[in-house]
Order: sequence, then C-alpha cells, then structure tokens
Amino acid sequence: MTRFALTLEFDGTPFQGLQRQKHGPTVQQAVEEAANAVTGEDVRLFSAGRTDTGVHALAMRSHIDIGKELAPFRLMEALNAHLRPNPIAVTHCEIAPDDWHARFSCIGRSYVYRIINRRAPLTIDHKRAWQVPQELDEKAMHGAAQALVGKHDFTTFRSAHCQSDSPVKSLDRLDVERDGNEIRIHAAARSFLHHQVRSMVGCLKLVGQGVWREDQVAKALAARDRQELGLNAPPHGLYFVEATYADS
Amino acid sequence: MTRFALTLEFDGTPFQGLQRQKHGPTVQQAVEEAANAVTGEDVRLFSAGRTDTGVHALAMRSHIDIGKELAPFRLMEALNAHLRPNPIAVTHCEIAPDDWHARFSCIGRSYVYRIINRRAPLTIDHKRAWQVPQELDEKAMHGAAQALVGKHDFTTFRSAHCQSDSPVKSLDRLDVERDGNEIRIHAAARSFLHHQVRSMVGCLKLVGQGVWREDQVAKALAARDRQELGLNAPPHGLYFVEATYADS
Repeated sequence: MTRFALTLEFDGTPFQGLQRQKHGPTVQQAVEEAANAVTGEDVRLFSAGRTDTGVHALAMRSHIDIGKELAPFRLMEALNAHLRPNPIAVTHCEIAPDDWHARFSCIGRSYVYRIINRRAPLTIDHKRAWQVPQELDEKAMHGAAQALVGKHDFTTFRSAHCQSDSPVKSLDRLDVERDGNEIRIHAAARSFLHHQVRSMVGCLKLVGQGVWREDQVAKALAARDRQELGLNAPPHGLYFVEATYADS
Repeated sequence: MTRFALTLEFDGTPFQGLQRQKHGPTVQQAVEEAANAVTGEDVRLFSAGRTDTGVHALAMRSHIDIGKELAPFRLMEALNAHLRPNPIAVTHCEIAPDDWHARFSCIGRSYVYRIINRRAPLTIDHKRAWQVPQELDEKAMHGAAQALVGKHDFTTFRSAHCQSDSPVKSLDRLDVERDGNEIRIHAAARSFLHHQVRSMVGCLKLVGQGVWREDQVAKALAARDRQELGLNAPPHGLYFVEATYADS
C-alpha cells in the first residue's frame, strides 16, 4: 500500500460537510468514490479538519492508501476526472510516509472567515461570504478578539455536538482586517472545537455593530456557558485555509 | 421624471447577457421588471456596456427614469428586494442630471479577465475564471499585448455580429499580471468592439503557452482579418470593472 497526501479545494455549498454522513452528499464520499473508480479498491479518506455543511476549503490536507501502483500526478489527474462535476479538486498529490497521517500528524489548522460589509445582497460572492448590512467597526472587532487568543476553556464557543475530549484549546491567532467593504477574520490553532470559529466570528460581529461592548467577548469566554454565546456566524463565509505538519 | 444612476454588480452565469433579448433571461429584463414592481411604471434601463452571456460585472453603470418620488437609498433597497433571487445587486444609486446618459456620456470602460493557470479544475471559482492547464508565460503575454495598445483597426478581434460603425478603436491599456496561479488581464478603452477583449485574451493565451510567437499578435492585428484570430477566450473569465464619465 502506498500513502498519498492530497490537497483538496472545494466549494462546500452542495455538501453535508466533509465527513461522510448517513444521508446527503459529502466531500469524503465523493473523493472515496472517485478513488474507488480509479483503483477498484475500497479507499478511505482521512482529513486534517471536519468542515461543516456549506464550509469551503482552499487547501484541506487529506490522505488515502492505495495498493495499485500509480504516479502521484496520474492519480491527481484521474481523481479530478472522476470528481467532475462535483466542485472538489485535488490541487496537489504526493507520496507520504506510511506513518504520516493527515489528521493525527497535523499540528496546526487555519481558517479565514469572509464578511462583505454592505447593504446590497451578494451576487458573485453568493454563498462565498457573509453579507452584513450593518456598518462594522473592524478595529473594535480586532480588539475584542485578542481576549480569545491564548489557552482557554472555550465551552461558550463550542457546539453541543462537539466530540472533543476537552473544551480547553490554545488559540494562536484571531486577527480582523478590512480591505474595502470586505472584512477577513484569520484564525489559527493546533485544533478547534466544533463551531468554534463561527461562534467567535458571530460574537465579533455583535461587537463590530456596537450591540456588544468589546469586553463582553471576554465575559462570554469567562462564563464557560453556551447560553452566553451571542450568535453563530453562517457557514458559507468560512474557509479552511491551511494544515501544517512538523515536517512542512 | 427623475433620472437615477445605478451601479450594478452581477454574476452573468444565468443570463443571456445584459441587453434584453427575445428569448432567455437578461440582466436588463430583471432590473426593468424590478423597477416596474417598485414604481408601477414602464421603466427602461440604459447601461455603459453590453456584456455577453456569462460575462460578469463588478460595477456596471446604468440609468433609469422614474416618475414616482423616491429617495435614492429607498429605490436601491426596493430594487434589491425585488431582484432576489437573481444574482444582480444595485450597489449604488444616486440622482443624475437629465442630460447624463449611462451609455452616451461614458468616456471610458475597463474590464479584467481572470485566468487560473493550473491543472486542477476550478471549484470555488467555477464559472468565475478561465482555467488554463498549460503553463503560461505572463511576461511574454504582456509583451505581446503592447502591440495592441493605441489606435488600430481591430477587425481581427471583432465578432461577426458587431454593430459598431467602425472597427477602429483606441486601446488605452492591456496589462497582464500574475499573482500566484492567477493571471489577470486589464483592458481599458473609450469603447470596445463586440468580443474584442475575449478575442485579444484568446490570442495572448496562445502566446503564453508558446503556440504563438510574441510578434504573431501584431501580425494578426495588421491582417485585419477575423480568420487570423487564434482563439476567443470563454465569457466566464470576463468582468466589466468600471465606467468613467467626464464629471467623475
């Protein structure tokens, strides 16, 4: 068996998330079916992150084990041919050591959340960003975000369905920047709780529009209570950007 | 009657272009129907450019004349409400002088053409850029493009359906730049012939992949013959970016 490391880009709109579900199409199912069509083997996909319904990926890292002898470039081309017309593409493919694991070897994950801050509905960016009509103060959002950086109990920002053993995570980065009417929120950590990024973004949006004072984010964190959560941002503004590994 | 200048953003994918056609949905028809729903009046839309099927706009300039008294902000909000779920948005609306005409007062139009230069199919940018798998030399493309800048007879780069009186146009700018695997071609002129930008981009793509030498673009131009055209780039990579007016 040869282990292939894949970099996946996908538009999350038509999928029930990355991870295989009992009902509805998923990214995992589509890639596994493409790999099965290419190799005739029963292939299983492992990935660095588990994105939700509607969440996109610019460069998800995954792996598959294949018995058939195939050059990485040929495998990438064949997978892409079989993935059509799904909006999933393999943008990079290489042979990985047998002990390299896309999920368990991953030591860092980063996301970007896109807000388009304008009155008009989105057209070209429909389902690719969160349109927020209220004028947002990105400096207040960035200031409030810094209270979340570091090692904390993120129970307030955790989904009821989260399967993580512990609500304690170390958030390495939560930066808010504006470029015209687009606000981008960059988040990086070794790992995240389920819904953590969207929950943090939702609260920062309330700070940005002046509904929450800056210190309410810190208070919500300290409460360690899901009831203190202001708002969960919608999935279609969220992009998985990068997975990092010790050797890369 | 009050003349309102509108700025329109749209995803061209589901439309048979901007201009009203006998068959199929158009941007003009959608905006006119929304304006009719808002005012009860028979409204006609005039626009700076006439984009083709599948071509997008970031900021098309248009105007409508309305008898009903309406503040520009209210008109914009009402149009956007009635335009849903069409991927068309009014991003700006203001009262214009009666002698201001979105098409005839326009003294400059600019477009950008997006190429994603990679093997993998597009996902998030599906129908929003042209995916070109062959490695392109953007410097050769930019060099070749400069032969087209200036006042020329652009017959080679003109559609058979072009309604312009003359094939002579002054091209102010044709710049090719790369940002990672994205190549952007910026074109600006007082006005363009039908299919001119896509025809120029198609030939530059041939130069970029080494199928055409750089000087073949100048030769094709000098031939003044549509048969010398190398290739018409697909519409979904093209965006109308800006219309300029003497007073703006």
